[in-house]
Amino acid sequence: MTEGGKEIERLIELMARLPGLGPRSARRAVLALIKKREMLMDPLARALAEVAATVRECEICGNIGTGPRCAICLDPKRSDTELCVVEDVADLWAMERGRSFRGRYHVLGGVLSALDGVGPDELRIPRLIARVEEGAIAEVILALNATVDGQTTAHYIADQLESLPVELTSLAQGVPVGGELDYLDDGTISAALRARKRL
Amino acid sequence: MTEGGKEIERLIELMARLPGLGPRSARRAVLALIKKREMLMDPLARALAEVAATVRECEICGNIGTGPRCAICLDPKRSDTELCVVEDVADLWAMERGRSFRGRYHVLGGVLSALDGVGPDELRIPRLIARVEEGAIAEVILALNATVDGQTTAHYIADQLESLPVELTSLAQGVPVGGELDYLDDGTISAALRARKRL
Repeated sequence: MTEGGKEIERLIELMARLPGLGPRSARRAVLALIKKREMLMDPLARALAEVAATVRECEICGNIGTGPRCAICLDPKRSDTELCVVEDVADLWAMERGRSFRGRYHVLGGVLSALDGVGPDELRIPRLIARVEEGAIAEVILALNATVDGQTTAHYIADQLESLPVELTSLAQGVPVGGELDYLDDGTISAALRARKRL
Repeated sequence: MTEGGKEIERLIELMARLPGLGPRSARRAVLALIKKREMLMDPLARALAEVAATVRECEICGNIGTGPRCAICLDPKRSDTELCVVEDVADLWAMERGRSFRGRYHVLGGVLSALDGVGPDELRIPRLIARVEEGAIAEVILALNATVDGQTTAHYIADQLESLPVELTSLAQGVPVGGELDYLDDGTISAALRARKRL
């Protein structure tokens, strides 16, 4: 295929490796970039190079940012007594979109998985325990995904923190806001029933 | 939203402008890039900058490439007597994936559209006429999209080339290879019926 030369083919091939893009949509994206060179391609090339050069993990929580500490850890208005544990940065962003948590985060960087050979030391679990041992945190909220590995990880963390004077909670399970019962899986319905509330 | 700082937010915003990506998939793509910085983000930033710096329109046909003339116009093995007229570079690439056309191309850069104020001079129609007038071309194949604007453009070009000693053809309309009649629109079925062939 002679799609406009080696450089363009290489760009298409790299774009196709992004999640959500395949070879066809990568081609469309590259053509759109070439059409809008000044409005889109040049700024995107600059933004990518800039982020690639500056992005780093926050030394406290594992969130990404452009300094040694992330914007959330540096924010003086957030509470130091609540710590929300998430699997990865995407989950942290999802929590932030909820706009109701005003404490700090701890990003594990994955979940325990015997199959993939991921043990506690591959994740930020030792650092989580160290943060809790410092004593300022009153509540640890486990916001791990409701998958088998996520729940295994939650149980492991609960075991490790048991002896420390900290309250351990997890996100409620139930019917999503706006969700229709008819479209929900059985597990969610029975979890919502077990956790039913008095009106 | 404090999604890891201004630079990352700007990158997400730019990625979200690509066709096929929205804000959510742009976030996912940026996180994947940050996770695979050396394998994906750095090479992509370099490839983008390189293409942005070198890509240009072929001075003959309007295809994109990295020199004054594109790879197809430079290919000595292709026939100079057949010229395939397409709307844009994506259509040229689609024709090339068909692997059966071995002539040259002419990319119009769009279609005539009274609504959008696109006249013949906004497209590469004058250059198409000039190419045909040079005399080497025996057949012009109009491979324009089967849309109203595409067909209007095809008729306009046919009018302009009428007085020149060149054969004008267009792509056949009919049932797509592997297509099921039940899923085809009525227009395609009746076009395929009108163009039916003896076995």
